[in-house]
Amino acid sequence: MPDRAFADWTRERQQRIEQVLDGLLPSAEAPGSPRLAAAMRYATLGGGKRMRPLLAYAAAELAGGARDDVDRCAAAVEFIHAYSLIHDDLPCMDDDALRRGKPTCHIAFGVATALLAGDALQSLAFATLAGARRMSLNGCRLLADAAGHAGMAGGQQLDLDATGAALDVGALNTLHALKTGALIRAAVRLGAACGRTLDGHEARALDAYAAAAGLAFQVVDDVLDVEGSDATLGKTAGKDAVQNKSTFVTLLGLEPARRRSQALHAEAVAALEPLGAAGGRLVQLADWIASRKS
Amino acid sequence: MPDRAFADWTRERQQRIEQVLDGLLPSAEAPGSPRLAAAMRYATLGGGKRMRPLLAYAAAELAGGARDDVDRCAAAVEFIHAYSLIHDDLPCMDDDALRRGKPTCHIAFGVATALLAGDALQSLAFATLAGARRMSLNGCRLLADAAGHAGMAGGQQLDLDATGAALDVGALNTLHALKTGALIRAAVRLGAACGRTLDGHEARALDAYAAAAGLAFQVVDDVLDVEGSDATLGKTAGKDAVQNKSTFVTLLGLEPARRRSQALHAEAVAALEPLGAAGGRLVQLADWIASRKS
Repeated sequence: MPDRAFADWTRERQQRIEQVLDGLLPSAEAPGSPRLAAAMRYATLGGGKRMRPLLAYAAAELAGGARDDVDRCAAAVEFIHAYSLIHDDLPCMDDDALRRGKPTCHIAFGVATALLAGDALQSLAFATLAGARRMSLNGCRLLADAAGHAGMAGGQQLDLDATGAALDVGALNTLHALKTGALIRAAVRLGAACGRTLDGHEARALDAYAAAAGLAFQVVDDVLDVEGSDATLGKTAGKDAVQNKSTFVTLLGLEPARRRSQALHAEAVAALEPLGAAGGRLVQLADWIASRKS
Repeated sequence: MPDRAFADWTRERQQRIEQVLDGLLPSAEAPGSPRLAAAMRYATLGGGKRMRPLLAYAAAELAGGARDDVDRCAAAVEFIHAYSLIHDDLPCMDDDALRRGKPTCHIAFGVATALLAGDALQSLAFATLAGARRMSLNGCRLLADAAGHAGMAGGQQLDLDATGAALDVGALNTLHALKTGALIRAAVRLGAACGRTLDGHEARALDAYAAAAGLAFQVVDDVLDVEGSDATLGKTAGKDAVQNKSTFVTLLGLEPARRRSQALHAEAVAALEPLGAAGGRLVQLADWIASRKS
């Protein structure tokens, strides 16, 4: 049964983050290159589920965070995500032509400009986070660690390292814990950091939630890559098979992979139990992540 | 007349920053991919003049900065510089095979790994800076702005935008103020920020110094690209001409470009006058920048 209130909350927050991103991105009149500004805007605005910002907003609500600071945390994480998509789509990586239902950044602007747009979006993420009024250096460090060699970039390299090799499920879990999990956990932690200081119990509950929800997201991604079409996904479907990649579907099979995503969803929800009703929005987000069709 | 004390200071600081970078870079045993760690280390260690760290150290001495914090500022700026060299050498950019006297990162590790190594070095820069004990969020913001669309990445895009077009000297000044100048100014400002708070007068003097010294560095670079060899430069010589780029030499001529670098050197030194003897080390660095042969 669709939850009307949740659908409204999601739409309202998606619209809000779109405005926030728009306001933080450079305009054509900003110092620097108008072409670079255009490429950064093209790759960031007008698409995407904004899952990471939604997680940041929900975690901030739980902890009572100030709205302006949450906006910046949500935007910083989304800028990192947007940069990673640009670089991931480049010819030397996945060589993909379609993203969020439109030509990828390097198809639209050329490879060199796409490279620089990704680079500049990573810088903008840290400029954005450092501009939050109540942010601490710990927050910057947390985001940097999540994006770097022990986080997202490290996971992408593990993915490269595995090309042509058969991974086992444990190695695939590790890969995705870095490649997508680290940034999703950072979104939740940064959102929560905008509010009151959580006790260790609460912080661990939130982090366990984020880790399980992040992995559920990835398992669903693998399932949708097999089940979906370019049109429903807004990106190239079936590319895991073409690239001969180990995925949860190739390792487990389609139906067991679906069950695995349900088990991870249950794990995420169970992790929130100590937080009681305050965790309600995050539970709804876990439902949304596990049941998404695109 | 070579200044023995300055040569000792330079060598001692170069050795120190090498150790600091080594300690901050991930090892093969760190979480993530050993191959990514190796590429990051390859591209950062064992070469380079370390001009930006030297500027940070000298500015910190002037302001009485704590040594540990200066190390992190110097390293953060050098990580940004190292990442920019990796990406600048990629096939989609300058397509260069030689850097610091050895094969470029993508020649040694492949294009995809080089891309990720640059990305992860940018993250590491912010993790490093955020780990300084007395750093403020302003410092993170300053570095992010210097690296991003209104700084280094923006300048690189202006360089791309100018391909095949004839720039005038004003446009070339603007391009280099972003492409190399912004990070050099950040090195000086971050180093100084490790010490006592400078008054507006002192801060403006330092920034005027950094801007002039940064542009002098670039003009000398253009002269050396014409005069130097691969062996003396440790990178491909003569590539500006091959790429048909506007440089200070193509716009002004070789001898006027030399005179321009001398005038910028004089401007940098004059900017420091209000600081008296405290600016001595920075004056020596300006001499070193203007007279370098590689």
